[in-house]
Amino acid sequence: MGFRYVLAPDGRIDPADRGLAYGDGLFETMAVRRGKVQRLDLHLNRLRRGAARLELPLPESSELQLKLEGSASGINRGVLKVIVTRGTGPRGYAPPRQPEPTIVLAAAAQGGLPPKQIAVATLKQALSENESLAGIKHLCRLEQVLGQLELQACKADEGLMLSTSGCVIGGTSRNLFAVFGQRLVTPNLRLAGVRGVMRQAVLSQCRILGLEVDEAELGAPEIHRANELFMTNALVGIQSVVRLDSTEFAGRDVAAQLRTALGLDGDD
Amino acid sequence: MGFRYVLAPDGRIDPADRGLAYGDGLFETMAVRRGKVQRLDLHLNRLRRGAARLELPLPESSELQLKLEGSASGINRGVLKVIVTRGTGPRGYAPPRQPEPTIVLAAAAQGGLPPKQIAVATLKQALSENESLAGIKHLCRLEQVLGQLELQACKADEGLMLSTSGCVIGGTSRNLFAVFGQRLVTPNLRLAGVRGVMRQAVLSQCRILGLEVDEAELGAPEIHRANELFMTNALVGIQSVVRLDSTEFAGRDVAAQLRTALGLDGDD
Repeated sequence: MGFRYVLAPDGRIDPADRGLAYGDGLFETMAVRRGKVQRLDLHLNRLRRGAARLELPLPESSELQLKLEGSASGINRGVLKVIVTRGTGPRGYAPPRQPEPTIVLAAAAQGGLPPKQIAVATLKQALSENESLAGIKHLCRLEQVLGQLELQACKADEGLMLSTSGCVIGGTSRNLFAVFGQRLVTPNLRLAGVRGVMRQAVLSQCRILGLEVDEAELGAPEIHRANELFMTNALVGIQSVVRLDSTEFAGRDVAAQLRTALGLDGDD
Repeated sequence: MGFRYVLAPDGRIDPADRGLAYGDGLFETMAVRRGKVQRLDLHLNRLRRGAARLELPLPESSELQLKLEGSASGINRGVLKVIVTRGTGPRGYAPPRQPEPTIVLAAAAQGGLPPKQIAVATLKQALSENESLAGIKHLCRLEQVLGQLELQACKADEGLMLSTSGCVIGGTSRNLFAVFGQRLVTPNLRLAGVRGVMRQAVLSQCRILGLEVDEAELGAPEIHRANELFMTNALVGIQSVVRLDSTEFAGRDVAAQLRTALGLDGDD
């Protein structure tokens, strides 16, 4: 099995690559601190689950891990992105039976800290529902792009996206947690959305801390009644939602507790 | 407004291109005969409708037409593909406010004629429903890729795809027409599927010929009761479906009539 590694920004992609042609691939965006990829095991797990779903071959975990760690090693604070596509092939949607995947590695330093508080606007752009693609981080992200286009006209930092059937899914690039009294709820993502690495870390941490947390269906009116809302992703960590549309949220405690427990305060 | 033209197979793509990163773009696949792009006006119309939906700038029609005609001019029988992406930009889903789109042109000669008859198998892989993306030919095609993966285990030439709510949409890369007595029906594609150029040509030709044709919702059991089924796309023209799963279809007349009327017989 061959893999073609492309090191961005200098490496280049064949215009016949199926990642470009059809979104036939996966990606991961990882935080780097002091040369180390943060939560690399969770990222590799999700990549592997996505690859199994798409029947996309991946290098051995040890090989991939070495490549990712090597790309991150010179960076004090930044982002490492990996894209894995099914490589090139003959014309048409049918995947080649012996694909030679393309693996793009792109590392970049990043200044500035993400804000701990954000304002969120509910978007009209909906996320389609399909259990065959839900949860994994595939390359077909036009709905999120259109969500961000819509967000550019809003006075908010992130958009809240619902599924076509009206279930709350999360942000354009963040997962959502709602706190009701002592209970946390996050959308179950059975039909839409991406199972974020920070979402996974928060779910595990809640169990360690003895916080009650459920993955469930959430309607839009319901989350407006939460005591506290926060959003997560691998790069921004945990951000309190201080406003959703015209609803203000005063709660910050659970987000703060989880940030501390997950060692995200050291990011400052 | 700048556009970056990439001539395949030698030109190369920046790994930060949003077409690769997010499927943020469109494509067209056109038949070329004796150096001419077939139904170029219909392809350009669909591309323009898609670009409007994605708020993606396109070159002037005259410029694009010249480029496409130039790429096709040396080819007797073949395929011309154009991909238009939103180009590169900063990290994240948010589109750059001043995008410099990438336009990939790939022309290739093609031997052999497409068969006039095909066997079709209904696939389990569903197409998601989202009116914001339905009809246009965007780059996010993982559902079709997964459909083709499933088809590789079937004894059939094409797969029939239903939407997640069970409506018949079409093939993985073809539109479907069903003939009931004197009436033709094709799925309305309000929520899923691509409005094919040959579908459009067939709809117009039906009206010229005085054939009754409707765009409507079609259920899977319904099409098994049709007298005749055929599938269409810009490259294969019109193909009679002789078998759908275990149902045989004897009707060929409407497909043959339309092929003649559309000048597709001259393809032989």
